[in-house]
Amino acid sequence: NKGVQRAEIKQGIRQVIACKDADNKIGLRLRHVNKGLFVALVQDNSPASLAGLRFGDQILQIDDKDVAGWDTDKAHKVLKNASADRIVFAVRDRPFERTISMQKDSNGYIGFVFKDGKIKSLVKDSSAARNGVLIEHQLIEVNGQNVVGLKDDKTGEIFDAAGRTVTITIMPTFIYDHIVKCMGNSIIKKLMDHSIPDV
Amino acid sequence: NKGVQRAEIKQGIRQVIACKDADNKIGLRLRHVNKGLFVALVQDNSPASLAGLRFGDQILQIDDKDVAGWDTDKAHKVLKNASADRIVFAVRDRPFERTISMQKDSNGYIGFVFKDGKIKSLVKDSSAARNGVLIEHQLIEVNGQNVVGLKDDKTGEIFDAAGRTVTITIMPTFIYDHIVKCMGNSIIKKLMDHSIPDV
Repeated sequence: NKGVQRAEIKQGIRQVIACKDADNKIGLRLRHVNKGLFVALVQDNSPASLAGLRFGDQILQIDDKDVAGWDTDKAHKVLKNASADRIVFAVRDRPFERTISMQKDSNGYIGFVFKDGKIKSLVKDSSAARNGVLIEHQLIEVNGQNVVGLKDDKTGEIFDAAGRTVTITIMPTFIYDHIVKCMGNSIIKKLMDHSIPDV
Repeated sequence: NKGVQRAEIKQGIRQVIACKDADNKIGLRLRHVNKGLFVALVQDNSPASLAGLRFGDQILQIDDKDVAGWDTDKAHKVLKNASADRIVFAVRDRPFERTISMQKDSNGYIGFVFKDGKIKSLVKDSSAARNGVLIEHQLIEVNGQNVVGLKDDKTGEIFDAAGRTVTITIMPTFIYDHIVKCMGNSIIKKLMDHSIPDV
């Protein structure tokens, strides 16, 4: 199943190499959480997107420097001053997120209600209930495709277009709110990369 | 590495079959979180421990009934009334937890400070900093061995006795606090299963 593969959160640490675009941008915003540094925005069609960085990835090193304890400003300054040709990241795959795969019922429903991407309630006897979906969690991806900042009806269309098996990627709401809180809603809506990831 | 194997959080849903002991107990306490039901206490040497249930496991079904939306009282009532010979659980492996493997330095340190099991600070240039350990997280296991409720010096001895590679299992503090908040500290200290899991 392609959706499951696209959503898979991999163990271990990977190296990501990115450059800057013609405007000297990499298309990445970071946010510090609990002395760690997390990807808060990946811009559509940017070097960060092409390099495969995703919302929620934890950045461990930039150009061989440990980033533990850095705040958001320091991180953005280092990125600004980094080489345009080659920036090397050590990355842990979306540590605050987890995936749940479900089956649509004969009406095409998986069985939860969401508002502004937040899971609000579960439908009794649904696939969501059987599989342990939780409220107070934010929908981050559907079949591996980022839905952060999408309007709910747009996210609903992605669910509708999906096959019988649907994999969601979720994160506790309080961590999600913390990661996005310094960005305006319009920035997230306008800039976030919602493309379907390569497997 | 045995520690990594013992700590591994497995994908998917497993079936666990347990019975009750001579006192008609199963040795398990549950706690509802976000409309899900989680293992809050596994008693040493109890049927729950022998069946391989662990702190933080999400219970999805008990005897084929979905538990989504049940509160703690309802769950305990159902367990009390369940058959002494055979209770069937559907279980998702510790969904709020994740593991991080680190290497001790030449002094035997991995590089973080904890108090009452909570990670308080990171040491610069340490394995913990390089591997993305976060503060505001609770130590749940060391090499797969549960340390919830252990005194910090006891947990320290487990770290000391471990080999060069150490795998920790952590959970955000706010979720941990929620799971344990209805149990007294003395119950956790006295009853929690701290045995080394079979691989």
